[in-house]
Amino acid sequence: MKLARVMDENGRIRSAVLQKESALLWDGALWDGVPEECGRAPLSSLRLLAPVLPPNIVCAGLNYKSHAQESGMALPPRPLLFLKATTSLCGPEDGIVLPPAAPDEVDYEAELAVVIGRRACAVSPEDAPRYVLGFTCANDVSARDCQLRLDSQWARGKSFDTFCPLGPCIETQPPALSCEITGRLNGECVQSARLSDLIFPLWELVSYCSHQMTLLPGTVILTGTPSGVGFARTPPRYLRPGDRFEVSISGIGTLSNPVR
Amino acid sequence: MKLARVMDENGRIRSAVLQKESALLWDGALWDGVPEECGRAPLSSLRLLAPVLPPNIVCAGLNYKSHAQESGMALPPRPLLFLKATTSLCGPEDGIVLPPAAPDEVDYEAELAVVIGRRACAVSPEDAPRYVLGFTCANDVSARDCQLRLDSQWARGKSFDTFCPLGPCIETQPPALSCEITGRLNGECVQSARLSDLIFPLWELVSYCSHQMTLLPGTVILTGTPSGVGFARTPPRYLRPGDRFEVSISGIGTLSNPVR
Repeated sequence: MKLARVMDENGRIRSAVLQKESALLWDGALWDGVPEECGRAPLSSLRLLAPVLPPNIVCAGLNYKSHAQESGMALPPRPLLFLKATTSLCGPEDGIVLPPAAPDEVDYEAELAVVIGRRACAVSPEDAPRYVLGFTCANDVSARDCQLRLDSQWARGKSFDTFCPLGPCIETQPPALSCEITGRLNGECVQSARLSDLIFPLWELVSYCSHQMTLLPGTVILTGTPSGVGFARTPPRYLRPGDRFEVSISGIGTLSNPVR
Repeated sequence: MKLARVMDENGRIRSAVLQKESALLWDGALWDGVPEECGRAPLSSLRLLAPVLPPNIVCAGLNYKSHAQESGMALPPRPLLFLKATTSLCGPEDGIVLPPAAPDEVDYEAELAVVIGRRACAVSPEDAPRYVLGFTCANDVSARDCQLRLDSQWARGKSFDTFCPLGPCIETQPPALSCEITGRLNGECVQSARLSDLIFPLWELVSYCSHQMTLLPGTVILTGTPSGVGFARTPPRYLRPGDRFEVSISGIGTLSNPVR
């Protein structure tokens, strides 16, 4: 099932189940489930928004061997967690804005995001699936000058407004290990991996996070990016106005954002 | 004026203005102002809660020279920002819980917190006061093993549940430079400084943060801690069950929390 947050023709924001050509619509949280009485509207009349408004955006750094290698950083012995400000959220087709404070080294990171559906505190990897609502695409946009040279902490370089595109929808079916994640810059494939390449697999990561803090419904966990990011290229390739970056995950869909 | 979030005798959570022996009460956000029609209840019937539910908790590290020195870290050329998870929030008298994942090196940090009252994006230090609702006490509780040895990023060690006590109320009058901030462990003064010791003063810090991300109403900015924290003592003094830590700021009040 594909869940979404949409704006209808009247500017009203609603929860949705996406079907072939139309969507079921209701008010109330996605994680409360689909009520018996729903509205319905054609997909063409709806605008997809970021599928949740997360209370926290928790991220795992260096969770693909290939990206740790290209970054020249050691593999972490445990998930390396950091946070993005919740105000960095944006939705499908929203512009990624190069921030006036740090416009020069803005980079992309295609990632699979886990969305929590049920308050999770110290759950085991075996139980983790019961606490997850589903999965979506994310772009962990990063100002590399702030992240890697100017600050010792990554928070600022990862938290500028529009630096967390999320969407287009939440697939409730867990992805297979063979599931492919792809990043495309202006149509050219620049990142590609399978979920089987993750150092800390999904349920282990959810379990670990739930032992560090309570995960409330709507919490988003970004699971790390594969190799191919812009700063590790020769020469480096940073985002410029007019670019478009797409994150595709098989079974979920494509998150596409222009750069402004 | 002293603003607060309280629970009344019926378990109802309301906004409040604290007066001598009673409080004005209303529903709705603190930053929308005191409505003409208010309820009233004796202070003795009310429980003070964390005064806001912040969309982000933004923190400035190493913002007192004395603390940077005791930590063996260089003075930052710009504010060193990091984030605490919003789920780390707790209120006056709430227990600071030593987390099972990292119970051994939990440390206190007495801090002045700024509470944003109006959406702020790229504001100047001169304009910053218009975007601030007021000031309160905070304890930036930190698991030093996670923060300083196990992880390169501070987010996890600073984000365990109950690691951000906040309160007891928001004083809307800006503090003077001579304003004193004190941390007391079981009654003994372990941290003491004046706001004039801040490396990046309040309005400059608010302005800086507003250039990195949009500050929504309710956003909390922790402004840094003076010297005297537990890990820099000989021998180190970490929090243990049965301890009590108090943060006092002249003109605001005292935030007191037991350790469990």
